[in-house]
Amino acid sequence: MALLFHHATLVPMTASGDEPTSRPGSVGVVGNRIALVTDDEAVIARFLDAHPDCRTIECTGRVVMPGLIDTHCHAAMTLQRSHADDIALMSWLHDYIWPFEARQTPDEVVLGMTLGVVELLLGGVTSFVDMYFHEDRCVETVERLGIRALLGCSFFDSNIDEAFAEAEKAVAQVTGCDRVRIALAPHAPYTVSRENLLRSKAFADRMGLPLMIHVAETQDEGRIIRERFGCSPVAYLDGAGLLDDRTIAAHCVWVDDRDMDTLARRGVIVSHNPQSNMKISSGTAPVARMLERGLCVTLATDGPCSNNDLDMWEEMRSAAFLQKLATGDPLVLPAYEVLRMATAAGARAMGAADGELGVLREGALADLIVIDIEKPHLQPVHDLVSNLVYCGKASDVETVVVDGRIVVENRQIAGLDLRQLYREVAAAVERIKRASC
Amino acid sequence: MALLFHHATLVPMTASGDEPTSRPGSVGVVGNRIALVTDDEAVIARFLDAHPDCRTIECTGRVVMPGLIDTHCHAAMTLQRSHADDIALMSWLHDYIWPFEARQTPDEVVLGMTLGVVELLLGGVTSFVDMYFHEDRCVETVERLGIRALLGCSFFDSNIDEAFAEAEKAVAQVTGCDRVRIALAPHAPYTVSRENLLRSKAFADRMGLPLMIHVAETQDEGRIIRERFGCSPVAYLDGAGLLDDRTIAAHCVWVDDRDMDTLARRGVIVSHNPQSNMKISSGTAPVARMLERGLCVTLATDGPCSNNDLDMWEEMRSAAFLQKLATGDPLVLPAYEVLRMATAAGARAMGAADGELGVLREGALADLIVIDIEKPHLQPVHDLVSNLVYCGKASDVETVVVDGRIVVENRQIAGLDLRQLYREVAAAVERIKRASC
Repeated sequence: MALLFHHATLVPMTASGDEPTSRPGSVGVVGNRIALVTDDEAVIARFLDAHPDCRTIECTGRVVMPGLIDTHCHAAMTLQRSHADDIALMSWLHDYIWPFEARQTPDEVVLGMTLGVVELLLGGVTSFVDMYFHEDRCVETVERLGIRALLGCSFFDSNIDEAFAEAEKAVAQVTGCDRVRIALAPHAPYTVSRENLLRSKAFADRMGLPLMIHVAETQDEGRIIRERFGCSPVAYLDGAGLLDDRTIAAHCVWVDDRDMDTLARRGVIVSHNPQSNMKISSGTAPVARMLERGLCVTLATDGPCSNNDLDMWEEMRSAAFLQKLATGDPLVLPAYEVLRMATAAGARAMGAADGELGVLREGALADLIVIDIEKPHLQPVHDLVSNLVYCGKASDVETVVVDGRIVVENRQIAGLDLRQLYREVAAAVERIKRASC
Repeated sequence: MALLFHHATLVPMTASGDEPTSRPGSVGVVGNRIALVTDDEAVIARFLDAHPDCRTIECTGRVVMPGLIDTHCHAAMTLQRSHADDIALMSWLHDYIWPFEARQTPDEVVLGMTLGVVELLLGGVTSFVDMYFHEDRCVETVERLGIRALLGCSFFDSNIDEAFAEAEKAVAQVTGCDRVRIALAPHAPYTVSRENLLRSKAFADRMGLPLMIHVAETQDEGRIIRERFGCSPVAYLDGAGLLDDRTIAAHCVWVDDRDMDTLARRGVIVSHNPQSNMKISSGTAPVARMLERGLCVTLATDGPCSNNDLDMWEEMRSAAFLQKLATGDPLVLPAYEVLRMATAAGARAMGAADGELGVLREGALADLIVIDIEKPHLQPVHDLVSNLVYCGKASDVETVVVDGRIVVENRQIAGLDLRQLYREVAAAVERIKRASC
């Protein structure tokens, strides 16, 4: 089965130097790969001849670009969206989040994951990195919904053995293509002991799994690690051998020059979560300085419990706005660089080789989105990338393709009864709230 | 003509203390006023009997709430959306914004205003405060599109006389109801001389017009005013007699305790523009401290040239996130307070008496919006106001009523050909860019 996205404006995310960031063109897909990126109608005609089963999607007035990549999420926490806002962190955790989580069943976690993935897909996110419990139970759902995922089995000291077992089960459940992969996810340097961090790294290496962890999210965390170990969270993790080019470090808000050098030297993938960092009052990650050092900085929503949505468009502009505010320099983190964080850079978190994901390039994985720019907030078009980054909305995403398959078309996910899903989610939330601890 | 919004969930913005912020209910409209706010079906039946021409809009799964009020905008600058991003302020003004403005005709400004008002209405904004040139030429368009507006005739020293003449013309052009009103808008304390500020205040008082002005937007402005006049921008304007309860002061980023006391004492309406302040690296307005002092703080988008859209939903969460980040306290500016800034508080900028606008209350002006909450990002509903403020999107607005008239229905503005508008806007932009200075 082949697809042709015809007569579009392309934002391929492959421009370098002074090359234009957008251009007219069409994209052909064969199997799960991009087979064609061209504006040559003769080449397109030959492509159509070679693929008589090709379905053509007319894209006049549309933008075709790589799908967005969310590199840190707790998607199942949709169940707790707006459950506990505008209250102090300790009360938030002890009185709301943890009691709720203690009561939810694995089936309810799957329900929350379903709602989260639906929100991600409808907002043009084609890949996401998740970190939560019961990921083994979510593999089937994530595979069925068609999104690309790296599912991180998360743990504190108290449930490390369950997490290892979950990870083994999850790996066994992943079927066929490598669209859904598994990772290990120790929660944070202050909630998992050094011994267990070492165990998890050894386990991950033995299983060939990447590792993800919250790092230097709050100033308090820095204080705790410094008191316990006499160094920064980054230095501490590096000393334990946890940092390498398969590690995703979420947040990295409170990192100094030496920490950034360490992260750069180890090739760590940083996941920046601007709206979560603002809403929870964590602070401002030094993204501009990280990028200057050549660090791989990607973009993420964090969970819907602390944000409260899974909207990468808003994260893009929040990232840009926040750096401009924090540095006092309106030139830092320009639109194209932010878009690269959310696409081509994010691809590294998914374990893709350079140029294999997050770009429109022949041979790359066919993860792409179609944006309707005939909307008042996207007109006129002085600079298409600026319009997309500063004004684009999740609701402008019309069609979503993951791994060569159309998973959203005209803002609908085929075969999914959303109202029924909302009813099931509401019933689950009611049950969990009623249940005693 | 009467309207009934039946079986909705209401967010009336009239709750005080521990009263619930949302409740099931219906809203009846007669003429341009809200005639009924109730969940009593017997009362509703009598309302329908009394108004046999009543049109009933079924609102199951919908929220009905007051329309949003944007208290500082340059709507016609949609023409320059993404025209000049991520570049230094002086180059931005001298190489892009001002040359563009020097070339645009009044008809092109009307076109920009049309696009801006369409974007505002489709995003649930029922009232806006504008500040730009050629407002007299925009009166007819704004009246026709059906939004409520306060149009501020803006000027520097160089064009004060034209602005006075424009204001007089505009006042004469406003017809019938008081849905569209005119104001005078000296640009800022550093771009209009003291003499001209005094002239503009005298003119505004003589004409009975409110006054709006940019105040303390950047640190540079504070430095300039201190060098010239030995005091802060707020103290300087107060000394010139410009500050009273009909003054809208946009930005107020760099204000100290004494400035805030002055603004509170004079009853000035503050317009907070969080995304603009971030994107232009202006700074963080001390909104939480202003609210503590009882100041009337309202919310705004600023122009689409510095933001780059006119989306009050994103301004709401940016306002909350930014205060939480700046104060280090996740408790400040909770969702309901932000929503009040964007509705009931904003009403004061429109010159409305307390309780007359920005609330669902019998007797208030019928400016309201219907939100479809059957969307993945708005489910489940633990806390409806949190969901609206932290996750609600412009695209969730289904129906918009201003002054008792349905101006948006099913996300459409009747009688408006949007594609034709985009073509005209594109042509105007092309012409302006080609034109020599």
